[in-house]
Amino acid sequence: MTFTAPESLSEQIAKYLAQRIIRGEMLPGERIQELRVVNELEVSRGSVREALLILERRHLIDILPRRGALVSRLTADKARALYDIYIHLLIMLSNGVALGWNEGNIQQVGAQIEKMKRLSGSGDAEAFIESCFALMREAFVIVNNPYLAQLLEDLEPAIHRTYSLAVRYQPQEAVRASVFFTELFNAALRREVQRIPGLLNAYGDQQCELVVAALNKEALACA
Amino acid sequence: MTFTAPESLSEQIAKYLAQRIIRGEMLPGERIQELRVVNELEVSRGSVREALLILERRHLIDILPRRGALVSRLTADKARALYDIYIHLLIMLSNGVALGWNEGNIQQVGAQIEKMKRLSGSGDAEAFIESCFALMREAFVIVNNPYLAQLLEDLEPAIHRTYSLAVRYQPQEAVRASVFFTELFNAALRREVQRIPGLLNAYGDQQCELVVAALNKEALACA
Repeated sequence: MTFTAPESLSEQIAKYLAQRIIRGEMLPGERIQELRVVNELEVSRGSVREALLILERRHLIDILPRRGALVSRLTADKARALYDIYIHLLIMLSNGVALGWNEGNIQQVGAQIEKMKRLSGSGDAEAFIESCFALMREAFVIVNNPYLAQLLEDLEPAIHRTYSLAVRYQPQEAVRASVFFTELFNAALRREVQRIPGLLNAYGDQQCELVVAALNKEALACA
Repeated sequence: MTFTAPESLSEQIAKYLAQRIIRGEMLPGERIQELRVVNELEVSRGSVREALLILERRHLIDILPRRGALVSRLTADKARALYDIYIHLLIMLSNGVALGWNEGNIQQVGAQIEKMKRLSGSGDAEAFIESCFALMREAFVIVNNPYLAQLLEDLEPAIHRTYSLAVRYQPQEAVRASVFFTELFNAALRREVQRIPGLLNAYGDQQCELVVAALNKEALACA
């Protein structure tokens, strides 16, 4: 599978910093000091710089002239733009599963659905969200479009961040998402391609509005 | 505009190698020797390795255990998977232009259409293709979805490669594409959102089949 590239050092540094941003340990507007990362992780300045460029491409930081790297600020407009494109890609992926599954390749997706359901009630939000992305990656195997898979991987960090924000703001979002993915899976199993866009748009709209509500609360807390 | 990240050294090396692959100077299956690039460009081994990982994510090379980096082989299936997702994204972009343009922001797109028309008959295929991507980037400004823009940038090298292949195989493809983009632009100007998917799908299907024909000819030449 060509979309699981081996990880370079910069990629590993980028993942480490991404995780801290996604978990909310580093806050919007917070400065990421190159030298501090260099000392903390005992890596070269060049590899940290590359990592910051990776994070900028993944929309987690902004690099500003004379101010350096800052954790990017999410806004309602940005969240809507992100969900708009993300849901479009998930519709393509789900259609691909609905049309392409067979007895041999659907087992793993089914097993991942069960795992996700179990985790949705566990209270471990991060493990639950990871299981949703694992489900997406199982779908990649059926759909076999390496370009689509890579684009969804490229969006993963930004979505991971908003998803975590939504679940921190409203923990029952995990249960709702689990019910939704089960319904989507059943629609795909029955090859009901015409139902997929409606299901996904409703899911995306609702999660996006949750993200916007969480952002508004954050803004109030800072005011 | 957050999608135009400053370029790291690895990114510059990746671009240099990408250009050679896109122009057909490096052929599918050809091995890219790390040390040769290190010596040729006088850069570090680490930055060449990072560049190769970038090119793998952009689908221009495959990195295989024990065999190293090879220029990726295009197949008919891969070309269809690529155009499928690319055309979907261009539909989103074009819809965004149709709904979002105004007197202030459409001028630059119009100017770029004129430039592209002039280049379509010039015989300079590379300059023409560059002008098509420049047109896409002007549309980014109107649509203002940094996620969509980044995904299209991520696909650019793979599409650039197939586009170049199509124009090398059939030089009049440039004129046809220019007529198509002008028609698409006029549909967007009249805000005819319902016409956009049909126009783009027809364009994508035809260019994709041209790519497949070019691949078949290549395969025959090698047999």
